[in-house]
Amino acid sequence: MSRLEIDVLEANAAFYRAFADHDAKAMEALWSEAAPVACVHPGWDVIEGRDEVLRSWRAILASPSAPAIRCRQAAARVLGDVAYVLCREDLPGAHLAATNVFVRERGTWRMVHHQATPIAPGQEQPARRPAGPVN
Amino acid sequence: MSRLEIDVLEANAAFYRAFADHDAKAMEALWSEAAPVACVHPGWDVIEGRDEVLRSWRAILASPSAPAIRCRQAAARVLGDVAYVLCREDLPGAHLAATNVFVRERGTWRMVHHQATPIAPGQEQPARRPAGPVN
Repeated sequence: MSRLEIDVLEANAAFYRAFADHDAKAMEALWSEAAPVACVHPGWDVIEGRDEVLRSWRAILASPSAPAIRCRQAAARVLGDVAYVLCREDLPGAHLAATNVFVRERGTWRMVHHQATPIAPGQEQPARRPAGPVN
Repeated sequence: MSRLEIDVLEANAAFYRAFADHDAKAMEALWSEAAPVACVHPGWDVIEGRDEVLRSWRAILASPSAPAIRCRQAAARVLGDVAYVLCREDLPGAHLAATNVFVRERGTWRMVHHQATPIAPGQEQPARRPAGPVN
């Protein structure tokens, strides 16, 4: 795994930490201030613009019913100064497939887009593990 | 709108043409052969790899129950040689929010990722039209 991929995965992990910790300030710091941002929460329409996106996050994080969330199977795709992470989100009683898009700004990966799609019950695929050496 | 944005929106329109026309060959030609590709169909888990992604599209396009689809409110975000399009998908009785990611390969925008998330009934926002001149 390249240094850039590790950095992107760290930015992705920081996003899920802010989400799980209900930390609106950390969430705000993650999102790009230079590039246009957007977000698709499950069941919502597209949200465009930093103010609107951050308002949606503050509402979600402030809600006492905000679910415990855990990210797994994160895989980064680095395309120059843009990268996206594919991962699964585990919530109590629900699994989602998520895409998180980042841009590299002065060496730091900042989020520009998040989209999560609920996975229908029974459609979840088993994790693919890299094949180990044959003994 | 920049030339690059227009080109990306044309690639996005070609994707929805292939989808609506059940044209598996056109769909195949749209997807990158150089970059890793992935896809999240509504309700499905993440699909990774060109063969798997194209297999899923062939199955969808071959199905007699494949829905009539129409893309609207497409907006392109160009980030160097990467771009993504946010749009809504209208299907009979359903609306989805979609993200389509493209990379520019030898001057042509090729798809690397598609994700669609169903919008819950009543959550659809009215289209934002650019404000016209004040008369």
